Amino acid sequence: MAAKNKSIQTRKGQLDAQLDLSAVELRDRMVRGQLKVEEVAQGYLDRIAEREGEVQAWTWLDSDHVLEQAQALDKYRGTGRATGPLHGLPVALKDIIDTRRIPTENGTVIDEGRVPGDDAYVVERLKAAGAIVMGKTVATELAYRQPGKTRNPHNPEHTPGGSSSGSAAAVAAGMVPLAIGTQTDGSVIRPAAYCGVVGFKPSFGAIPRRGILTQSPSLDTVGVFARTLQDAALLGDCLFGHDEADSATEPTPPPRMLKTAQADVPVTPMITFVRPPGWDEADSQTQMAMKELTDLLGQGCFEALLPNVFEEAPTIRERINFAEMAKCYYTYERRGWDQLSEPLRTAMDKGKQIPARDYIAALDWPNVLNAGLAEIFQRCDVLLTPATPTPAPAGLESTGNSVFNGVWTLCGLPVVTIPLLEAENGLPMGVQLIGRKGDDARLLRTARWLALQMTESPELLEAKA
Amino acid sequence: MAAKNKSIQTRKGQLDAQLDLSAVELRDRMVRGQLKVEEVAQGYLDRIAEREGEVQAWTWLDSDHVLEQAQALDKYRGTGRATGPLHGLPVALKDIIDTRRIPTENGTVIDEGRVPGDDAYVVERLKAAGAIVMGKTVATELAYRQPGKTRNPHNPEHTPGGSSSGSAAAVAAGMVPLAIGTQTDGSVIRPAAYCGVVGFKPSFGAIPRRGILTQSPSLDTVGVFARTLQDAALLGDCLFGHDEADSATEPTPPPRMLKTAQADVPVTPMITFVRPPGWDEADSQTQMAMKELTDLLGQGCFEALLPNVFEEAPTIRERINFAEMAKCYYTYERRGWDQLSEPLRTAMDKGKQIPARDYIAALDWPNVLNAGLAEIFQRCDVLLTPATPTPAPAGLESTGNSVFNGVWTLCGLPVVTIPLLEAENGLPMGVQLIGRKGDDARLLRTARWLALQMTESPELLEAKA
Repeated sequence: MAAKNKSIQTRKGQLDAQLDLSAVELRDRMVRGQLKVEEVAQGYLDRIAEREGEVQAWTWLDSDHVLEQAQALDKYRGTGRATGPLHGLPVALKDIIDTRRIPTENGTVIDEGRVPGDDAYVVERLKAAGAIVMGKTVATELAYRQPGKTRNPHNPEHTPGGSSSGSAAAVAAGMVPLAIGTQTDGSVIRPAAYCGVVGFKPSFGAIPRRGILTQSPSLDTVGVFARTLQDAALLGDCLFGHDEADSATEPTPPPRMLKTAQADVPVTPMITFVRPPGWDEADSQTQMAMKELTDLLGQGCFEALLPNVFEEAPTIRERINFAEMAKCYYTYERRGWDQLSEPLRTAMDKGKQIPARDYIAALDWPNVLNAGLAEIFQRCDVLLTPATPTPAPAGLESTGNSVFNGVWTLCGLPVVTIPLLEAENGLPMGVQLIGRKGDDARLLRTARWLALQMTESPELLEAKA
Repeated sequence: MAAKNKSIQTRKGQLDAQLDLSAVELRDRMVRGQLKVEEVAQGYLDRIAEREGEVQAWTWLDSDHVLEQAQALDKYRGTGRATGPLHGLPVALKDIIDTRRIPTENGTVIDEGRVPGDDAYVVERLKAAGAIVMGKTVATELAYRQPGKTRNPHNPEHTPGGSSSGSAAAVAAGMVPLAIGTQTDGSVIRPAAYCGVVGFKPSFGAIPRRGILTQSPSLDTVGVFARTLQDAALLGDCLFGHDEADSATEPTPPPRMLKTAQADVPVTPMITFVRPPGWDEADSQTQMAMKELTDLLGQGCFEALLPNVFEEAPTIRERINFAEMAKCYYTYERRGWDQLSEPLRTAMDKGKQIPARDYIAALDWPNVLNAGLAEIFQRCDVLLTPATPTPAPAGLESTGNSVFNGVWTLCGLPVVTIPLLEAENGLPMGVQLIGRKGDDARLLRTARWLALQMTESPELLEAKA
């Protein structure tokens, strides 16, 4: 008995260690049959059982549903048929992403009990790729600012960020290797940075949004959470595509991000540090960390000033966001204005006041801003900024400050945050890299290069620079 | 002397008759060398000299410039090189279409003396196709309602319609075989119908708008004027395309409209008569003419009711038009508000009052309207309506009523008007056919079929139906 117990214990310990492998490696082991999908799924379910009381990442989770999918995948593999690129990998879905027959409540009591008849595009893709739909994760109210129940896994007294709070926290707490969220302002990058995981917001229009709550069609962007850059690339590869229902998407060849991200950089990347609008809101440790990082990169990094027009960018982004939100959430206004939070009602009231002419003029700005960046991008591969002005603030009443994120969302550029830094209080801090539009794969490759540099010694870095 | 004079006279008479040939035939004769381009150009210049005093179609015309182009084309052909698809054909351009080094004044004194540095996309295409840029034709003020100097060639006391007044009148007066205009409401179809020529407004996004005055990006559509449907197809073939600068355009295969329009219909087309919003504004002779026409078509034509949502379409179209105009013409507001006409200022003031939310909601309507039409289009090839509620009204202070045109512009559908009818006062009346989106070539083929039917006897028609 004792011996058997010990064997089970060891087996569990071994599994637990394997759950922390990269999703790419984990998938490979399941594909090769070294691990059963059911075993892995159960392992993650156990972790959720352990941590969920504190983290509160999930709004819908059904162990039976998870295990059924896992068994089906094991059985499918057993028939000898080709497995999908996400074979057996559990993925968490922000609860504004429609799932067929599974509640999708958009973070608002107005949608309590809402069960969509159809899967969102990204859910169709996950299922086709052999992923496990693990469950639905907490979103802030209608993906705006009013927080849900989720806490930061690194310190439950701190916010996980938002609006994709549960997706970021679930990955950070090791409950899933992968999650999907959305960003209209900073809703992927900020929670990823606060929770210490990789967050990747692709180029605008890269991932079709059919079946996802629409807040602001000119800004809404689907993004992913993962523990490693390769894992983010793997998930991105499955989700990038074209869908008639989303006019922001176009037929394009597959991005092959995983392959690119795994490759060595052909030459040492050139990185440009920029101070985004709102730089003064960054705390001294964040400013200091950036200084250290850029010093470390030496001649491989230079600082550039953003064109003056960038000072207007936050205002312009908000104008587009609020005007479109006032239109897109009209149905919520009608069905339950009183059930909306004060911050959301204020934003919608602002949105209603915006004249069409100002809104239409604002839509010209991404082109203006990107033209201003063109010269900088001629001389470098990526831009570098902190992901957030501070690590996750204490308290759960706010999801924190997105001032370093919204401008890149407005520009439609691909952005990634890497959890490379640690604050004095032990909380993670993210380094944000911004790539050229459409250059998602190269952005991830450069990000991986940077992450590898940072794990080596500074001396080595200097020698390379 | 007498004999020589007579010979010249005869030659001139022969040429004059040839100028009234279809553009396709005229081009073929120039390509084969039966006619010289210079001879043809001079012939049209002579006609302009004869009629311009009365018609006032042109805002810029330079005979030397025309003859230089003609001589260059004759010389080019003389080298034995392949001629372009519009070889030697004079084309008139609405004066909101930019022409390099040639004044383009947009119908407003504010732009007096404005000379663009670049050709519009359509002008580039014309030149590449071997056409002659004949000159610039009168547009109403900024392509809105305030009339220019042009008169209806059929009766100078009547309006030619607008806003592409000069383009329609120039073709109607035989001054050019082809012309280009634009339509945001009814600015191609209405003047074409009033002046008794073919007007063709393609599907939204078919012809790139780079270098053309932007009034309302969601509605502005480039269209063509010609004497025959084949000629409209010929010109359309040269202008359809994709341009990065116009996001409404897409890379698509060449439309081959001329080839399709010249072909016989594979089966007898099915035509649906619809009463568009504003039907009560049609005078009795227009209503009667439609009745006769549909009777003539017999079982090849049925009447359908437009879905109720179409009643809202004119309001929705105007909302989009005015909101976008208020934004796009902001530069004119700043530079010369006092120099704008009262109707334009009123429209812009209305535009400024439109909330962004209502504007954004209005942008959803084309999809709603087209969904409503889908069922009707399942059972027929084209829709049939009068092009205008009445023939060209007397007086020059208004460009007439566009109520039968704007809804199809809003829907983005291809539309053609054919001068098949004549009013009691001898003025032409147009029959408007509306096709499925993107089905421009088939629309022209069906239109040509209808035109051929109408020139045959009613008995024959009945036998076929």
